[in-house]
Amino acid sequence: MENLISIKNLTNEDILKIMRMADGFEKKKIKSSVKDKNVCMMFFENSTRTRFSFEMAAHNLGLRVFNFDTQKTSLSKGESLFDTIQNLSSIGINCCVVRSKESIITSLLDTNMRFINAGEGTISHPTQALLDFYTIQKHFDDLTDKKVVIVGDIKHSRVAKSNAELLSRFGADIVLAAPDYFQDNSIKNVRYSENLNEELKDADITMGLRIQKERIEENIKFDDYIKNFQINSSNINKNTLLMHPGPVNRDVELSSELVNSSMGSVILEQAKNGVYIRMAVLDMIIGGKR
Amino acid sequence: MENLISIKNLTNEDILKIMRMADGFEKKKIKSSVKDKNVCMMFFENSTRTRFSFEMAAHNLGLRVFNFDTQKTSLSKGESLFDTIQNLSSIGINCCVVRSKESIITSLLDTNMRFINAGEGTISHPTQALLDFYTIQKHFDDLTDKKVVIVGDIKHSRVAKSNAELLSRFGADIVLAAPDYFQDNSIKNVRYSENLNEELKDADITMGLRIQKERIEENIKFDDYIKNFQINSSNINKNTLLMHPGPVNRDVELSSELVNSSMGSVILEQAKNGVYIRMAVLDMIIGGKR
Amino acid sequence: MENLISIKNLTNEDILKIMRMADGFEKKKIKSSVKDKNVCMMFFENSTRTRFSFEMAAHNLGLRVFNFDTQKTSLSKGESLFDTIQNLSSIGINCCVVRSKESIITSLLDTNMRFINAGEGTISHPTQALLDFYTIQKHFDDLTDKKVVIVGDIKHSRVAKSNAELLSRFGADIVLAAPDYFQDNSIKNVRYSENLNEELKDADITMGLRIQKERIEENIKFDDYIKNFQINSSNINKNTLLMHPGPVNRDVELSSELVNSSMGSVILEQAKNGVYIRMAVLDMIIGGKR
Repeated sequence: MENLISIKNLTNEDILKIMRMADGFEKKKIKSSVKDKNVCMMFFENSTRTRFSFEMAAHNLGLRVFNFDTQKTSLSKGESLFDTIQNLSSIGINCCVVRSKESIITSLLDTNMRFINAGEGTISHPTQALLDFYTIQKHFDDLTDKKVVIVGDIKHSRVAKSNAELLSRFGADIVLAAPDYFQDNSIKNVRYSENLNEELKDADITMGLRIQKERIEENIKFDDYIKNFQINSSNINKNTLLMHPGPVNRDVELSSELVNSSMGSVILEQAKNGVYIRMAVLDMIIGGKR
Repeated sequence: MENLISIKNLTNEDILKIMRMADGFEKKKIKSSVKDKNVCMMFFENSTRTRFSFEMAAHNLGLRVFNFDTQKTSLSKGESLFDTIQNLSSIGINCCVVRSKESIITSLLDTNMRFINAGEGTISHPTQALLDFYTIQKHFDDLTDKKVVIVGDIKHSRVAKSNAELLSRFGADIVLAAPDYFQDNSIKNVRYSENLNEELKDADITMGLRIQKERIEENIKFDDYIKNFQINSSNINKNTLLMHPGPVNRDVELSSELVNSSMGSVILEQAKNGVYIRMAVLDMIIGGKR
Repeated sequence: MENLISIKNLTNEDILKIMRMADGFEKKKIKSSVKDKNVCMMFFENSTRTRFSFEMAAHNLGLRVFNFDTQKTSLSKGESLFDTIQNLSSIGINCCVVRSKESIITSLLDTNMRFINAGEGTISHPTQALLDFYTIQKHFDDLTDKKVVIVGDIKHSRVAKSNAELLSRFGADIVLAAPDYFQDNSIKNVRYSENLNEELKDADITMGLRIQKERIEENIKFDDYIKNFQINSSNINKNTLLMHPGPVNRDVELSSELVNSSMGSVILEQAKNGVYIRMAVLDMIIGGKR
């Protein structure tokens, strides 16, 4: 595995190997193979948890972390990103962790750099899907026929798309519950629904999504959205696992008491597990074969 | 000690323990108890010396330093600071060092994070008072009945308030010398004065303060201020210890030759001592009991 | 050597010593003498390769790297840079690596800090000239009477000036080939030319320069420039070493195929070699005599 661009590029065996390695790092059974290598954080969009999670993973592995300031670099002097990357590689950077608005990694694969996608516009967010799968596996031995209801702004959510791809491959029944203005009918191996209350009744896993206000051009009626698509104590079922990639808009996607309470929410577990997943991914991409 | 929020929350014994630990770190008699733990710098206001001082202290202790970019984070996506902090804690951050315009730490104490106040608006700056006390102790065996004249923009100065609290507890006679537009009459256990020249004559310690131009809404006549409240070679006494928390507006609070000269100024000593104080505080807050 | 300000301040023996140390670091024959010392990156102008190169060098030497955010510091509170530097020194910073628009280091030499010039406006860029010399030495045993053609925006190029100074000292014949609006007639020990095609015919070394669009106030006709001064496959000679300090404006200074091809271009070698040169310089400045 030379780059992590999308779940689509991973085999099921790749995914299961990442799970085993994350588990090994969490239980301190395996050690870093990449000590003193160099990783560059290249974030063209804002981030807190993903960035800190990658930085923490990097420090845990003994990697050196470089920050590419996307506003103060040679890109502003007219250099192509391709040339910048070639130079970073010559200087000794082994891997770039990239968050961007558009797909840019695929145009850079002819450089000598290795890449990890840390969130690509509305398209994909593979490490989020991997950490969600890792979190789910701690609660369910087998995902076959488990009902996963993904709720809300599917259209702008890279998390929904990467999770639908990954979880359906491992046998989950995916339902995308959203109003028509947030639905994305191009996603495969899923069922579409506009009836949230009905779908949540027997959901094994309920996954909220952040309303991506900064990407929404439509004129959304939030009152309507909240009335029909907010996950709250009146529609959630007691036995479901409640997930959300964060950051949460409290009282929009989720009612505030669900975030606070111990009603099955694993939101902070997700944040914790992300570090182990990113350790596994960084170690595999930079260190090569084990 | 789980957090360092203000001098008011510290007992005299706490303060003396911090002094002993700082001394131990300075003399290399004690070692870090927090190696490979994780500290996050969260600065909502500009800083050079405080930030570098905490970073240096952290590196000296073997801590890993994370920088929270207050402009490029999930806060801009609508997440509450409370939720951000909970996530940072789950990711593995052990302590946040916070500089802010308003009191924000107290609203975050229900999270799992530990906090150190690195300057809170015009309210308090406990590590500055601690390092000032540490610096003073190197020059005076006992603070009882020593006269400390704090001069200038008391009203906007968190440094003045934290020092008045700390030094008066250890027996110093505090005089706040300021024009009425910079005075703050709510500070306890101090004497107020408008006659700088008179007060400086027998001052054991003379403490200048930065005019906080960025916080001043009043229309100040700087010429008048300088004429009546500048500390300079014509009013300073030869035997006083001259302190200033920095940054200095040269030729406003202090005449330039006082900053340059060796006329009792310990301004750079203060900067040096700050590192040991912050090592002590970081080690105590993150490492817990010794 | 207490500071590295310009090539002019270095003796030939200094330069050759830097070459030997860089070679020692590249071949892992010598070790850092500055582990756990503290270096501060102070970049008042944008940079990618120089900044990353210094950071990589610092990490390779076991230095701790501090970033001075030139927009969020006490300078914005009215402190002089002189006082800021004195404070950084007291806090424990051993050396500042400075990129600036104007000459600022010379006004700071009375502080306790050590300095390395990482690019000074249009004036000088000594570590670039040193790494270029290091790169050239890998291809030529002796520089005597070798023809070096430096092409393009000489006027705004600190790289051209530092290279002209250094390479002419070691016997190279320097030709500055540029249109009159980019020429700088004050440079010594060089020949001036407006006939690029003629000069390139027997050039041993061809050095392109970035058109410094951000510094150019004149109204330049880029079409004319490209027609007469672009280095491309029609005028470059087969045996020349092609250099460029980067970032490259593709199809302006150099035709794109020259950057891509293996037609003698050592642009990425330059980036790689820069790390060893900066290791040598950091080790010498911070560590003192070996």
